[in-house]
Amino acid sequence: MASPTKGSARPIGVFDSGIGGLTVVRELFRVLPHETVYYFGDTARVPYGNKSRETIVRFSTENVLFLLHHEVKLIIIACNTASSHALPFLERSFSVPLVGVIEPGVQAAIAATRARRIGVIGTAATVGSGAYERAIHRVDPAIRVTSVGCPLFVPIVEEGWVTRPVARTIAAEYLAPLKQAKVDTLILGCTHYPLLKPMLRQVLGPGVQLVDSAAEVAHHTKVILQHHHLLNLSRNGSRPAHRYYVSDESAHFTTLGSRFLGRPVRPVTRVAV
Amino acid sequence: MASPTKGSARPIGVFDSGIGGLTVVRELFRVLPHETVYYFGDTARVPYGNKSRETIVRFSTENVLFLLHHEVKLIIIACNTASSHALPFLERSFSVPLVGVIEPGVQAAIAATRARRIGVIGTAATVGSGAYERAIHRVDPAIRVTSVGCPLFVPIVEEGWVTRPVARTIAAEYLAPLKQAKVDTLILGCTHYPLLKPMLRQVLGPGVQLVDSAAEVAHHTKVILQHHHLLNLSRNGSRPAHRYYVSDESAHFTTLGSRFLGRPVRPVTRVAV
Repeated sequence: MASPTKGSARPIGVFDSGIGGLTVVRELFRVLPHETVYYFGDTARVPYGNKSRETIVRFSTENVLFLLHHEVKLIIIACNTASSHALPFLERSFSVPLVGVIEPGVQAAIAATRARRIGVIGTAATVGSGAYERAIHRVDPAIRVTSVGCPLFVPIVEEGWVTRPVARTIAAEYLAPLKQAKVDTLILGCTHYPLLKPMLRQVLGPGVQLVDSAAEVAHHTKVILQHHHLLNLSRNGSRPAHRYYVSDESAHFTTLGSRFLGRPVRPVTRVAV
Repeated sequence: MASPTKGSARPIGVFDSGIGGLTVVRELFRVLPHETVYYFGDTARVPYGNKSRETIVRFSTENVLFLLHHEVKLIIIACNTASSHALPFLERSFSVPLVGVIEPGVQAAIAATRARRIGVIGTAATVGSGAYERAIHRVDPAIRVTSVGCPLFVPIVEEGWVTRPVARTIAAEYLAPLKQAKVDTLILGCTHYPLLKPMLRQVLGPGVQLVDSAAEVAHHTKVILQHHHLLNLSRNGSRPAHRYYVSDESAHFTTLGSRFLGRPVRPVTRVAV
């Protein structure tokens, strides 16, 4: 398809069910400082983690179409739930290059583990999909994978309670099977979880390495852009004009979002999908 | 509008953002055993409590239209967030009799308080709307109202952790301002909260009366049906054929729902709104 804008100058599209994907955008800014990012957070229908596969696929498809209308050159599915349920369908259906968050996290975890015992935490839908187990076992079927759904972690992060004792109590409960399984590597299978890192380290101790796929996703994205000759090499001195779109207007997205992104989130536009 | 079915024989429509409204349906079955209930849970877009007024009004309008297509004779908005933000617009826009959950809860609380200090707990959106304060002060401006948003209570109920110590820790945190304000009556301003009653009683002690609007809503509904000559008086011996509709298919709705309803939830049909 011909585009009015030169391919490599077009933005990278990123979507998430809400705010968590901004942890991935933060890494994109670090690894790919010349790229423009258009972010879409489906804040009207958040969360995805407690919904069915069919609904997650439908919402994800609508999000991809929204970003395609904005002529993005590549789309990052910065949501573990959407990546684990919708990525295969999206890859079959669309020609735009797609990057999910499962594969990058799996590769980092396999590189990190020595005991070949990996833990995975995520939403109920992500863990229920079995996507992480399958991806790990495609590489090494001998790795023991222990997965735990942690539905309360997202609300705890959203409430800003990550440093409170109650967060630790909840974590101790959820992580007990991972301690018992003696995992030496834990995949943070939800883009909200990087904000829980200090507390998770306290609960699990220094022997467990925490793998947050955000940085890895940014590196994968760079490789794929290079492969398609879509990397933006122009250094015209102007700063990229990033944009943030949401399906529900919310002060929350802007205020909490800056904690995820590490800088102010603007401009934010409300759109219908 | 002429209806193919005799007015009083038509079903009562009930909607909620998800599963919580089933606590209201349970009371409807008790108070109005001859009535047929059509329930709609917007499980694809749940929760509403962290969304904007505009989005809550839009979703609520779509839910009302869905129920009207099923020829309901009255609609109960069994969701505090939707009642507090959307009821005025829905009342202006539709001719069908509507029952929200705010007014019934307020009337019960005003009847219960002796100290004239009432507490309200609910979602961020419900508390942010100020709907409870306004409704209480319309009746008695001298009543002191203390409201607290409790975003973690719904996930705690959904996770089935209502009897765990961590639920009590979270409740102690949220309810501290209500204890300090010495409220003698607490409105449970969310249809999920009745399942937290035993734990809330432990935290607040016997001096605080808990007001759950579900029973009161059923009584209001009966009065309004009588007023409109829509009460189903037929006793033809057949049991009412209740129906449950959801926007996202979920085993969770059926399993957790039976805890809210006090009996099996069936038949459940997935629909698009």
